[in-house]
Amino acid sequence: MIQWQNGTVITPDQTKLPLQEVTLEIKTVEQMAEAIKTLRVRGAPLLGAAAAFGIALAAYHSKAHSKEKLLVELEDAGAIIKRQRPTAVNLFWGVDRVLNKARGFSGNVEELKAVVIEEAQKIADEDAQQNHAIGKNGAVLIKDGDTILTHCNAGELATVEYGTALGVIRAAWEQGKKIKVIADETRPLLQGARLTAYELKRDGIPVTLITDNMAGYVMHKGLVNKVIVGADRIVQDAVVNKIGTFSVAVLAHEHGIPFYVAAPKSTFDLAHKASDVVIEERKPEEVTHIGSHQIAPEGINVMNPAFDITPLKYVSAIICESQVYYSKDFGKFKDEGKRAK
Amino acid sequence: MIQWQNGTVITPDQTKLPLQEVTLEIKTVEQMAEAIKTLRVRGAPLLGAAAAFGIALAAYHSKAHSKEKLLVELEDAGAIIKRQRPTAVNLFWGVDRVLNKARGFSGNVEELKAVVIEEAQKIADEDAQQNHAIGKNGAVLIKDGDTILTHCNAGELATVEYGTALGVIRAAWEQGKKIKVIADETRPLLQGARLTAYELKRDGIPVTLITDNMAGYVMHKGLVNKVIVGADRIVQDAVVNKIGTFSVAVLAHEHGIPFYVAAPKSTFDLAHKASDVVIEERKPEEVTHIGSHQIAPEGINVMNPAFDITPLKYVSAIICESQVYYSKDFGKFKDEGKRAK
Repeated sequence: MIQWQNGTVITPDQTKLPLQEVTLEIKTVEQMAEAIKTLRVRGAPLLGAAAAFGIALAAYHSKAHSKEKLLVELEDAGAIIKRQRPTAVNLFWGVDRVLNKARGFSGNVEELKAVVIEEAQKIADEDAQQNHAIGKNGAVLIKDGDTILTHCNAGELATVEYGTALGVIRAAWEQGKKIKVIADETRPLLQGARLTAYELKRDGIPVTLITDNMAGYVMHKGLVNKVIVGADRIVQDAVVNKIGTFSVAVLAHEHGIPFYVAAPKSTFDLAHKASDVVIEERKPEEVTHIGSHQIAPEGINVMNPAFDITPLKYVSAIICESQVYYSKDFGKFKDEGKRAK
Repeated sequence: MIQWQNGTVITPDQTKLPLQEVTLEIKTVEQMAEAIKTLRVRGAPLLGAAAAFGIALAAYHSKAHSKEKLLVELEDAGAIIKRQRPTAVNLFWGVDRVLNKARGFSGNVEELKAVVIEEAQKIADEDAQQNHAIGKNGAVLIKDGDTILTHCNAGELATVEYGTALGVIRAAWEQGKKIKVIADETRPLLQGARLTAYELKRDGIPVTLITDNMAGYVMHKGLVNKVIVGADRIVQDAVVNKIGTFSVAVLAHEHGIPFYVAAPKSTFDLAHKASDVVIEERKPEEVTHIGSHQIAPEGINVMNPAFDITPLKYVSAIICESQVYYSKDFGKFKDEGKRAK
């Protein structure tokens, strides 16, 4: 959920949901960087659009009189945005796509500004279209009566609209399939409890909230038919997604439950492998505190990786806007990776 | 951690830790029942002693002039305590052991009071001894340099002293083995973050706190050599323990990491199978709120099972006070179950 309005980026503050619906009005690259760093703006596909709009903000508000000066400012803006979070590939992809367009442009400075803003808007529009396509492609895999477990939030909030994993759920629901969703709360930042539960409840799609450690229990009881999650990066041999995804994938595998990943191709990074991925380590307070409430002893050692890595052996299919890649197709990723190099 | 002092039961309020160290002074069965229901007093072995002391409180403060009258009061006290929590077998075991002693006693009313109090104290003393024996038996399985993952709190706080799972860790540490612990926070009530982290940090045993959904990540990274947990009930074919235990067991199994259960024989209920066990469902607010902080949308559906069931195929060994049962010994449980009937 993100919109460009005459030099302002409008998007919900996702750290305030579900108790408060606060709209951010972001006017500078620095504000966008802060919003990305603090997860006010989060979700891999949304980060692609947010990164692009961050460059667009730099262009719109620039006082540069030469194209060369503007390009330097845009490169600086890109560098600021890229250093906010190391794992989600869409952030780099969004910045690079706009910068590449700008670098190759031959018009004057005012035309360049327009081109940058247009390209950012195009990224956002494409994301919305892609999510509807992902939804349509993925809904084929969902049966009437299924209960689908999801982790974190790969919904409307995490994208420009409709969602990826929740886009598949929405599309199945819109086709009249009577489905139910079980949402992992997704510690430490509770995107499942706060965002997925909020989105689905608002839309009237039946959703039940569980703590992350109940996923095995509900699978063992036969309450789950499918798992669908999003992705922050898909490399040759693995899916990188919110911490806890790997545990869910292993549990699904053990119970013979299909484990699907729904993500746009902008999330694919087939030139790299799992071993190349830097996992963002976030501050300990996210684990030791919930809101202002301290839940652990003072000074305790903490680990806080924001993501984990799920080898493709645990993944049944990857749903993207162009097609569904089934596990038999995953071998192609290495060849595509070689071509990408 | 529980003590009898002239008609008062002294024990820490575990809901207040680690930020406040509040001591409960429990003087009536009703107060004990409330403390058990709200988890101020928790942990399977501690519940056995607490249940017995609950009956002892009824005896100590009774104004009954006849043995028959006192026995009725004790039976009533037992019924009150038993209905607080349905899953932990130690609660029933503690009540029944004291009541059986009382029922079979042939002296006068004052002598009966003394016998009941003495039997409760004996249960507490035995638990302390058993935990040291469990620690000694289990420490054999721990190697110098091991990193041990634990879930929930099966420590000093969950027992009369020393702990079961943490008793094994303590014993290994006291033997000079340089071990480290990774503690799952254990949502929804955070016994790992609040109690295990507190106990181990206080005792100088290195401990790192993670959210439950990081267990797979740390195993996949090769950071865990062993898993040890306690148990609320061990039946013929499964271990019943805190919600999330099953997920950890599956993850350990997938990574070839030994998964140990440490529990006194009072936790064994071999006359029953997993399918006989009633899983306590607790109130939704434990999931939707942390402290007074609401983390989910108003009115959201929630599941909140307090326990889950881990089939013995995922368990490498059960450490009790008399011996270590390795997986090859688990077949005996069915025969012992038949004899118990």
